[in-house]
Amino acid sequence: MTTNVTTVPAYAAPAANAPLERTTVPRRPVGEHDVLIEIKFSGICHSDIHQARDGWGEGIYPMVPGHEIAGIVTEVGTGVTKHKAGDRVGVGCFVDSCRECEYCLRGLEQYCAKGMIGTYNALDKDGEPTYGGYSTHIVVDENYTLRIPDGIPLDQAAPLLCAGITLYSPLAHWKAGPGKKVAVVGLGGLGHMGVKIAHALGAEVTVLSQSLKKQEDGLRLGADHYYATNDPATFTELAGSFDLIVSTVSAPLDFTAYVGLLRTDGALVNVGAPEEPIALNLFPLMLGRKTLAGSAIGGIAETQEMLDFCAEHGLGAEIELIRADQINEAYERVLASDVRYRFVIDASTI
Amino acid sequence: MTTNVTTVPAYAAPAANAPLERTTVPRRPVGEHDVLIEIKFSGICHSDIHQARDGWGEGIYPMVPGHEIAGIVTEVGTGVTKHKAGDRVGVGCFVDSCRECEYCLRGLEQYCAKGMIGTYNALDKDGEPTYGGYSTHIVVDENYTLRIPDGIPLDQAAPLLCAGITLYSPLAHWKAGPGKKVAVVGLGGLGHMGVKIAHALGAEVTVLSQSLKKQEDGLRLGADHYYATNDPATFTELAGSFDLIVSTVSAPLDFTAYVGLLRTDGALVNVGAPEEPIALNLFPLMLGRKTLAGSAIGGIAETQEMLDFCAEHGLGAEIELIRADQINEAYERVLASDVRYRFVIDASTI
Repeated sequence: MTTNVTTVPAYAAPAANAPLERTTVPRRPVGEHDVLIEIKFSGICHSDIHQARDGWGEGIYPMVPGHEIAGIVTEVGTGVTKHKAGDRVGVGCFVDSCRECEYCLRGLEQYCAKGMIGTYNALDKDGEPTYGGYSTHIVVDENYTLRIPDGIPLDQAAPLLCAGITLYSPLAHWKAGPGKKVAVVGLGGLGHMGVKIAHALGAEVTVLSQSLKKQEDGLRLGADHYYATNDPATFTELAGSFDLIVSTVSAPLDFTAYVGLLRTDGALVNVGAPEEPIALNLFPLMLGRKTLAGSAIGGIAETQEMLDFCAEHGLGAEIELIRADQINEAYERVLASDVRYRFVIDASTI
Repeated sequence: MTTNVTTVPAYAAPAANAPLERTTVPRRPVGEHDVLIEIKFSGICHSDIHQARDGWGEGIYPMVPGHEIAGIVTEVGTGVTKHKAGDRVGVGCFVDSCRECEYCLRGLEQYCAKGMIGTYNALDKDGEPTYGGYSTHIVVDENYTLRIPDGIPLDQAAPLLCAGITLYSPLAHWKAGPGKKVAVVGLGGLGHMGVKIAHALGAEVTVLSQSLKKQEDGLRLGADHYYATNDPATFTELAGSFDLIVSTVSAPLDFTAYVGLLRTDGALVNVGAPEEPIALNLFPLMLGRKTLAGSAIGGIAETQEMLDFCAEHGLGAEIELIRADQINEAYERVLASDVRYRFVIDASTI
């Protein structure tokens, strides 16, 4: 590969609801502050499926999903100081932002006042569509890349770039740690990272899952307790128990019931993506100064902090490695919750 | 009056939806830690009407509403150290709590794990119903009474015991102050105290009211800006503006639209009492780590802090003083939002 690379192999959805297929997409020449990354692994996030199938509207096609990218730097621009060829790096959910608003300046690029530029399904500053990680190479500004510590295998690191930071950020912001009781709702791609991270942060961790099907896994991953939410007794037994509940599920949830599980001053933080508005009774929030909050991924500095934390604690995602030609099948299995716990594409098969 | 007082004049609702009428109710003898208070003024809170009319269910009749009580101590029990005869005192929404749970021990008696004992429409520890402030006297444990500083006229002080603390507590908890943009939704009994207190705390204050009808009042009370929420342009012009929004209205509100007015990390705190569950879109909470929270009155120590703060800043409620025989008419006017801004009963007319 040279700086003249302009098209690279990728898997793309040619249109909404069409299966993904092999194609090529353009990558810009390596600019002064860019790094060219040879992608090694790319995680499959539930939101890839939402977007590929136009579930959120305004999809840009052909669409190359993938915002859980781990790879190796093969070339850097003349102005790059953060990376050199051979570095292990990651790219998450966004590849640029305005860099000027107060949120960007505070390291909260994910909440950029002008809107972050998504790693895929977005228009870059040059007006060209961005293409994600289901590809062999990507060119990204060095300020939007992450260092992947040696302690984490690259395939297990990829999902940290979205699933990992999506859980780490609220757990850190709402101060999960020793003496705190934390519940994670849903034990999927997001939830399993929540259990690992909350446990490593020192919190007492409870999994609230629909059934006890994955109980053994949950306890192995670091949960102290495991309850089935299809058993109504769970909601009486655990009433008023938790300082923090992080909900990772996209399915409609009875949020009022979960608010009832919070202690006074507790927070229920949603990081899942329910497509429909929820119904909420406000009284249980008032009787205990409780909060319902949302949180989206994390900023660049916090994502680096998360990667360093994961390396220090020996954390990576639990993955199922697949070939690129298995992507469409993997999508169906994600929708059926039939994955423990993240599909990762081996980019060498693209 | 002596310690043998057992029945005192009061206005009570004899049954759900029946007009309030003059009657007598029992008061317990002054115990070791009790104070006997000659009630001078009692505010009319919207929740008095809800409860008198059994809007929340489980009403105990006859019901003597009133939890915004200001009066003078006329007698104290042998063990009382906090008050002496002649002291100006107040009683708010609760007259006891378990005193043992972590919330009581932390001064959050309003969130007592066993449930605070309401000033009326509750059963006291002795199993007898509590009767509220629409009365000439009340006996209350000294630990659940407040000192009303000389700087606040008693009639203007009465509404502070509920309306004042209901706004002060979230404004203080979510750190309204210099450099913070705070919006108060609704300019009624609660909202007008919110404007006064948020302004005194140093915040930049915006009133969000249905129309501009009370704009002049709002600005006089301390608001810097005043917007009508029946104008859709308000929601585009103020998008992403506020650090804190306190909603004081009981009517159904489009909470998703108000979340859109928050800055990143902003909080929308509900202190009103919508009876129906609300519909809420979770995405706007996620895209800015925003929170929807609830808050209920305040603890005893914080209520004292609020009264001292109000005295220091010359704040009292804007009131319309009425005779006891005007209570039923006042209820109708409250329901029609026809009061600026709190009815207060002159207890000498009971």
